[in-house]
Amino acid sequence: MSSKLTNENLLIDALQYAKWSPKIFNQMRKGGVDCVHVTIAYHENFRETISNVEYWNKLFLDNSNTIIQAFEAEDILKAKKQNKTAIIFGFQNPSPIEDDISLVEIWHRLGVRFMQLSYNNQSLLATGCYEKNDPGITRMGIEVIKEMNRLGIVIDMSHSSEKSTLEAIEISSRPIAITHANPSFWHPAKRNKSESILKRISESNGMIGFSLYPHHLKNGSNCELNNFCEMIAKTADKIGVKNLGIGSDLCQDQPDKIVEWMRNGRWTKVKDFGEGNIDNPGFPKQPSWFQNNNDFINIHKGLKVVGFSPENIRDIMGINWFNFFKISFSQKD
Amino acid sequence: MSSKLTNENLLIDALQYAKWSPKIFNQMRKGGVDCVHVTIAYHENFRETISNVEYWNKLFLDNSNTIIQAFEAEDILKAKKQNKTAIIFGFQNPSPIEDDISLVEIWHRLGVRFMQLSYNNQSLLATGCYEKNDPGITRMGIEVIKEMNRLGIVIDMSHSSEKSTLEAIEISSRPIAITHANPSFWHPAKRNKSESILKRISESNGMIGFSLYPHHLKNGSNCELNNFCEMIAKTADKIGVKNLGIGSDLCQDQPDKIVEWMRNGRWTKVKDFGEGNIDNPGFPKQPSWFQNNNDFINIHKGLKVVGFSPENIRDIMGINWFNFFKISFSQKD
Repeated sequence: MSSKLTNENLLIDALQYAKWSPKIFNQMRKGGVDCVHVTIAYHENFRETISNVEYWNKLFLDNSNTIIQAFEAEDILKAKKQNKTAIIFGFQNPSPIEDDISLVEIWHRLGVRFMQLSYNNQSLLATGCYEKNDPGITRMGIEVIKEMNRLGIVIDMSHSSEKSTLEAIEISSRPIAITHANPSFWHPAKRNKSESILKRISESNGMIGFSLYPHHLKNGSNCELNNFCEMIAKTADKIGVKNLGIGSDLCQDQPDKIVEWMRNGRWTKVKDFGEGNIDNPGFPKQPSWFQNNNDFINIHKGLKVVGFSPENIRDIMGINWFNFFKISFSQKD
Repeated sequence: MSSKLTNENLLIDALQYAKWSPKIFNQMRKGGVDCVHVTIAYHENFRETISNVEYWNKLFLDNSNTIIQAFEAEDILKAKKQNKTAIIFGFQNPSPIEDDISLVEIWHRLGVRFMQLSYNNQSLLATGCYEKNDPGITRMGIEVIKEMNRLGIVIDMSHSSEKSTLEAIEISSRPIAITHANPSFWHPAKRNKSESILKRISESNGMIGFSLYPHHLKNGSNCELNNFCEMIAKTADKIGVKNLGIGSDLCQDQPDKIVEWMRNGRWTKVKDFGEGNIDNPGFPKQPSWFQNNNDFINIHKGLKVVGFSPENIRDIMGINWFNFFKISFSQKD
């Protein structure tokens, strides 16, 4: 990948939650990854998430040769010029704002640019994809969407349920994102998205980031690269190519206690296995062709094989996200 | 005052803690006040101070025609160009960092640019001016000074004791400030500063902001303008004019429960009267010639009467602070 200051060729991953280390940051550099949206909270409350920012501040200090925090889309170009990967903070749950809408602005100032309105369960704002009933966006949810719109924080509905997601698209004055999920027409996991959602995302200039997390893949860990890329091609046939990107959901080097935290937080005393089950309770094995940040080149090649043009590949691998970030993070004055 | 984009003529007040209102912000504009360092915490802990930032975020939204938050010295010039007063956050106590040094960087990101290492009592970092004994800067204090130096947060020793203040000057790699106090040679209040401190502040390119708070004034509320300005002239004779500014300590429109909070926080069950006493427990009356932000012109005139040159008046009324802010807030890369 070129390191020229240009957005002609950008590689952006819209979701990772790795056990961060210099090894992983070096793989980002080796793999030419220009920007990663990293999760800094699953179920953490306000103060716990502040501690996660403190942890990241130390990572930025200790790895200043490979990573740098981004606050605006243009910071990705600056990072690329410095041969660094731009890191953008996001939440997978609104737990860091607790019940206080004014914390949204505090988090914006600290660099948070994505927030899921719900994880798998009902939140104060919206319904998660594992709930039985889906009443839609709550009263507080409507107000928080307006506040996120005002500040420039992306509404991410990756783990939300059908009705809540469709309502969020309608209520939001800015396009929203599904940072990491796949179409359910390909693999009908609870976390994957209906054609109605994909259609509304596309019509509203939102984005979907295709996930490499095995539970979101047809044939799981054994999913073949060609099949994954054919799914992208089929999605492009249905809704066009401009709203497609990658959101790998890579959880590299994490111990299984982390997937337990993701699934159980502090909300249950009976263990919930989420997308796994009692015989397969841990993190699933990644497909052989997507193990780490040095493997995006395989997807690039796979997209070529299934017939995408160089321009379309460029768009899917990063430019679409970059254009979306520009619109999404901008201040409305 | 001119609103031309220039630092030829800047009016900066290095400390206020008013009961903020559109009335006060309008007085700032009418009085030509280009920048005010405002206190956002006395004894508040981390989360409580976050609520104070939320309160300020609402003030910025609701008063966007008169005030704007400043993060860098240059923001003061931008504010002036927009006919607004630049507001800079500061703490009078390190309580918002609790026992967590990494919170210093969180606060820096949120715009805090001043922190007193202690208020009147012993803190985790330094000793306050009302303590009987003064062991000096603590182990944590040494580390926090380094962190504040790294980030660009001013070490403010206005309420600290003699030895702690002298040690802070030595330990800090950047100049420090006494944002609001007067020389004790003029009025020997516990809060006023010795000639040793003034001398070391000047030698190290630090700053002292002269206070208009009656307990810091000779003859208190009845202090005469000319006498106040003669004190400034005498200080200039001793340490020169380049390290002098104004830090009014204006607490306009505050109810007396606020001065009780300042003095007592949550540290005592026996009421402490601080600089007051049982017969005079509330906020003292301001001198007639300094009631609000529209009265800086009186000090300007008074400095002329006692013989300061136009250039020296310009320096004392704002340029010295501006130059100090430029050095103090800059990032060391």
